Amino acid sequence: MSVTTPRGFRAAGVTAGLKASGRPDVAVVVNDGPEHVAAGVFTSNRVEAAPVTWTRQVVGDGRVDAVVLNSGGANACTGAQGFADTHRTAEHLAERLGVSAGDVAVCSTGLIGELLPMDRLLAGVDDASAALGAEGGPAAAEAIMTTDTVPKSAAVTGDGWSVGGMAKGAGMLAPALATMLVVITTDAVLAAPDADAVLREAVRTTFDRIDSDGCQSTNDTVLLLASGASGITPGRHELTEAVRRVCAELARALIGDAEGARHDIAVSVIGAASEDDGLEVARAVARNALFKCAVFGEDPNWGRVLAAVGTTSADFEPGVLDVAINGVQVCRAGGVGEDRGRVDLSAREVRVIIDLHAGEHEVTVWTNDLTHDYVHENSAYST
Amino acid sequence: MSVTTPRGFRAAGVTAGLKASGRPDVAVVVNDGPEHVAAGVFTSNRVEAAPVTWTRQVVGDGRVDAVVLNSGGANACTGAQGFADTHRTAEHLAERLGVSAGDVAVCSTGLIGELLPMDRLLAGVDDASAALGAEGGPAAAEAIMTTDTVPKSAAVTGDGWSVGGMAKGAGMLAPALATMLVVITTDAVLAAPDADAVLREAVRTTFDRIDSDGCQSTNDTVLLLASGASGITPGRHELTEAVRRVCAELARALIGDAEGARHDIAVSVIGAASEDDGLEVARAVARNALFKCAVFGEDPNWGRVLAAVGTTSADFEPGVLDVAINGVQVCRAGGVGEDRGRVDLSAREVRVIIDLHAGEHEVTVWTNDLTHDYVHENSAYST
Repeated sequence: MSVTTPRGFRAAGVTAGLKASGRPDVAVVVNDGPEHVAAGVFTSNRVEAAPVTWTRQVVGDGRVDAVVLNSGGANACTGAQGFADTHRTAEHLAERLGVSAGDVAVCSTGLIGELLPMDRLLAGVDDASAALGAEGGPAAAEAIMTTDTVPKSAAVTGDGWSVGGMAKGAGMLAPALATMLVVITTDAVLAAPDADAVLREAVRTTFDRIDSDGCQSTNDTVLLLASGASGITPGRHELTEAVRRVCAELARALIGDAEGARHDIAVSVIGAASEDDGLEVARAVARNALFKCAVFGEDPNWGRVLAAVGTTSADFEPGVLDVAINGVQVCRAGGVGEDRGRVDLSAREVRVIIDLHAGEHEVTVWTNDLTHDYVHENSAYST
Repeated sequence: MSVTTPRGFRAAGVTAGLKASGRPDVAVVVNDGPEHVAAGVFTSNRVEAAPVTWTRQVVGDGRVDAVVLNSGGANACTGAQGFADTHRTAEHLAERLGVSAGDVAVCSTGLIGELLPMDRLLAGVDDASAALGAEGGPAAAEAIMTTDTVPKSAAVTGDGWSVGGMAKGAGMLAPALATMLVVITTDAVLAAPDADAVLREAVRTTFDRIDSDGCQSTNDTVLLLASGASGITPGRHELTEAVRRVCAELARALIGDAEGARHDIAVSVIGAASEDDGLEVARAVARNALFKCAVFGEDPNWGRVLAAVGTTSADFEPGVLDVAINGVQVCRAGGVGEDRGRVDLSAREVRVIIDLHAGEHEVTVWTNDLTHDYVHENSAYST
């Protein structure tokens, strides 16, 4: 159940020595076709890494033949040399595969502001090319890990076709460093414009709704590659739903493996006047450091939820807000509700439901608690 | 050097038993005139505490005779009963002082979502009224502390007049719980509209530019009271500068005493196309959890600064950004600059300078690092 579950794909993961830990750090995913349809979504951070700039261009024409991914260095804030290195990496893999460098996507993750050791990286690309295989998905998923504690793969099977995927990231959609990289594959037949629409729709309600720490990456990339190898053209809705399920499973896995987290928190806003309103409120709560600390302390401090809701421009009246935490209605009509002492926050998964009483829209954003271990991991990364 | 430094003011701080710790928790500041001019600025949080709603109305006509402040409970999210309690507190002090309840401001700070124990609070108001004195400023400053480790007072003396002030807060301007309360006093003569303009100008570049954790309070209140007791009318600019200096000193003291902080960080943006651009960039960096963790770890991880800058809509080209940390130009032209190993982050005060190369405006926002102790204090507050 990985990127090589769909037919028409080979993958590999190898150790090139980019990471001090000696763990695998270079992955390659190849689409052997017959079709080579691709779509991508990228970080909205204006300071974007060289591989993002490159891959945006590669995906622009809707065709990708292969993706090379490395951990152990983000190649961000590395100027003209960084871009030249990305270009050279794509050319190197293109030569090995006999394809055009302009059809090779590149993704990098790791520390910002350091050039990649190109001799090691290119040797790693050689090794990965030699190791490519139809069972290589799990090895590729392992090679893209940074602070992840487990590799993340998923797949959904349709009627004669399937969707696979792998992801890395320490639980953030909008990360500044650990960086989310995702490759989704399918052997379904679909045209490039459809691929783009399917991917955007799937990402919108999955990866765009996880937010571990509000920090936005320079390297975030989600790619969808379609080989057409099944010969089957599923219905648009059916395919979108399959891609969405793979994205949702991977997104949930990212939150579940977030740096230092002890709790996974689903912040659900109901009764919103619009989806945008619901999203603004859910994000405000998901990014509130005091609320996240309270969950770590297993303290159902609902006042911090209301204080976060109050910072938004969403439609609501403060005097009608309801908040439930793990099923206990701790805040009713903007004031004290059921006894907060009844809330049990000992389990990893926490459910917060905020009713704005302003409409019919519902939005859920997943986040994590803010813990000693988060501070520890992120205060000791580059040193 | 406190709220009772200017002539025409008496103050007191007493222990009413609102806090489990048994520390002082009720303060009163009285303006004996001859003038009773006042201005106020309040939290922009839409979920505002009952005392904020009340005091906004009181200050509306430009007159305040007295302020009663309590720690040990924020009286936020407490509905109609909470507002009635605030009203009753103002009436109680008004009767003791022989003034109108409509001229008595009320400020509260502490846990959100709990009603105040009114019997204790009103008895405390009685005790504070009996203890009022021209030397009472320091006791009042002590009685408004919550997680503060030191009381915070300041004063600036003009030619025959002065400005004094006190503040509480765990280093946040936009806090969700610990809440910033500030009372500034002066014996200068000034009209109510001038008081409002002077206070807003002073707050704009002081309290509005500290941001410990991006969390906005339900209770933030800054009041300026003018007694006119000096009989002197200073120049508008001179008075504004004196008020600004008192606000700046108190703001710096809030950051210096922020919950669990090990570093005070001045994030300065230079070369901004506008003040708004500079402020947006400085705030984005000041609120970036990963950057704040890096400073805690004494790790000059400038990539996290650039990643934060990249999330803003300010005018800049990524390829020309410069970043200096404690005098070392770690990022030049959007890429690697001087050796990050040369940066010394062992001192409490950290200076980050970001040059956008887009104009002539400069803005500095003060923040803190994100530490184990911050998480600890905020995960164990209400329980």
